[in-house]
Amino acid sequence: MALKGATAPIYFGSFLVTPQVSTTPPPIPNFLPPNKNQVFYKTPLSFALVNLKPILPGHVLISPLRVVPRLSDLTPSETSDLFLTVRRVGRMVERVYGAASLNIAIQDGVHAGQSVPHVHAHILPRKAKDLDHRGGTDAVYDMLNGKEGDIGRALLRDSGGATEETRRKRSEGFPVPDDEERKPRGEEEMVVEAEMLRGEMEGEPID
Amino acid sequence: MALKGATAPIYFGSFLVTPQVSTTPPPIPNFLPPNKNQVFYKTPLSFALVNLKPILPGHVLISPLRVVPRLSDLTPSETSDLFLTVRRVGRMVERVYGAASLNIAIQDGVHAGQSVPHVHAHILPRKAKDLDHRGGTDAVYDMLNGKEGDIGRALLRDSGGATEETRRKRSEGFPVPDDEERKPRGEEEMVVEAEMLRGEMEGEPID
Repeated sequence: MALKGATAPIYFGSFLVTPQVSTTPPPIPNFLPPNKNQVFYKTPLSFALVNLKPILPGHVLISPLRVVPRLSDLTPSETSDLFLTVRRVGRMVERVYGAASLNIAIQDGVHAGQSVPHVHAHILPRKAKDLDHRGGTDAVYDMLNGKEGDIGRALLRDSGGATEETRRKRSEGFPVPDDEERKPRGEEEMVVEAEMLRGEMEGEPID
Repeated sequence: MALKGATAPIYFGSFLVTPQVSTTPPPIPNFLPPNKNQVFYKTPLSFALVNLKPILPGHVLISPLRVVPRLSDLTPSETSDLFLTVRRVGRMVERVYGAASLNIAIQDGVHAGQSVPHVHAHILPRKAKDLDHRGGTDAVYDMLNGKEGDIGRALLRDSGGATEETRRKRSEGFPVPDDEERKPRGEEEMVVEAEMLRGEMEGEPID
């Protein structure tokens, strides 16, 4: 299902990732400014979004529409829909980015490294020898879990510092940025990629 | 669904992981000797097995019964069943091993680090500070992907060296053991754990 006609806002954790349609200030920190859309695919229960800081080309995320932290919080229908979406979007990004394999990873809970308390599966398209310069195939995990892959850090930095939400997360032990790190890519680049992937998904078989 | 009455052999890749019932030699290398059962849970389309070399207590694997290498090879029904099983078994191992989070990882294809060409999701129960002595939460990935977590290596070494299958894999670029490495745990310990987990799954809600 494409996003045409979709009006309900979509949140990744506490971050709005679809265009802001309201003229009143949102009640929680925003990630994207008005008219920017990070979401490129939506099913009845799940959505797919591009990354602020992809660690490899085509690194995307799949989440349930409902904002819950753990896989065990999902209903069976949400679980099925989420992973059918992972399979479908994975097939698409593998094709579009000329890859031959995929890493799929879920940090299900804070002690597993989860930085945004909203279920999300990372999909990372892989090619032969793509990370030889970083130490080999499995370097992807260091990248995914190091500062360069930390979505929570990236989102929170981008949202402008220590908001109430940030302070709350800090107190809950979620990693929060306080320093240097690689510059996230521009919103424009991200929105253009989402638009391209939205088109690709329109031609993707449902099963 | 428990394993009572189950008679069909289950293979993880080319390795038989249920008791060998035939008196004639099997056509492909065996992993477990007769009357050993590594499988602790089975659904109509998926199964769960304990690990020869768990990298953390409760590290188990979930696979489709059908031996195919890629997620994209699965039917929608197989995909749903696989991940409903991941969710169900994950909830159980988190409880049984006193954990508070889970890492879930799939190496979907050889260029993503897959060592046994049969779809499998790793489930790793996580606790607060459980890997601080190894460098922190995300050390799990180094362990999962280093020699100590390599299921293909462990299985192939255990099966007795360079069989035809091993040579075939070698030629296809799958990692194959040829050296040292940590000793895998004993079959008895693995079988006892599988028996314990089989009992736990009998009390686990289906959804």
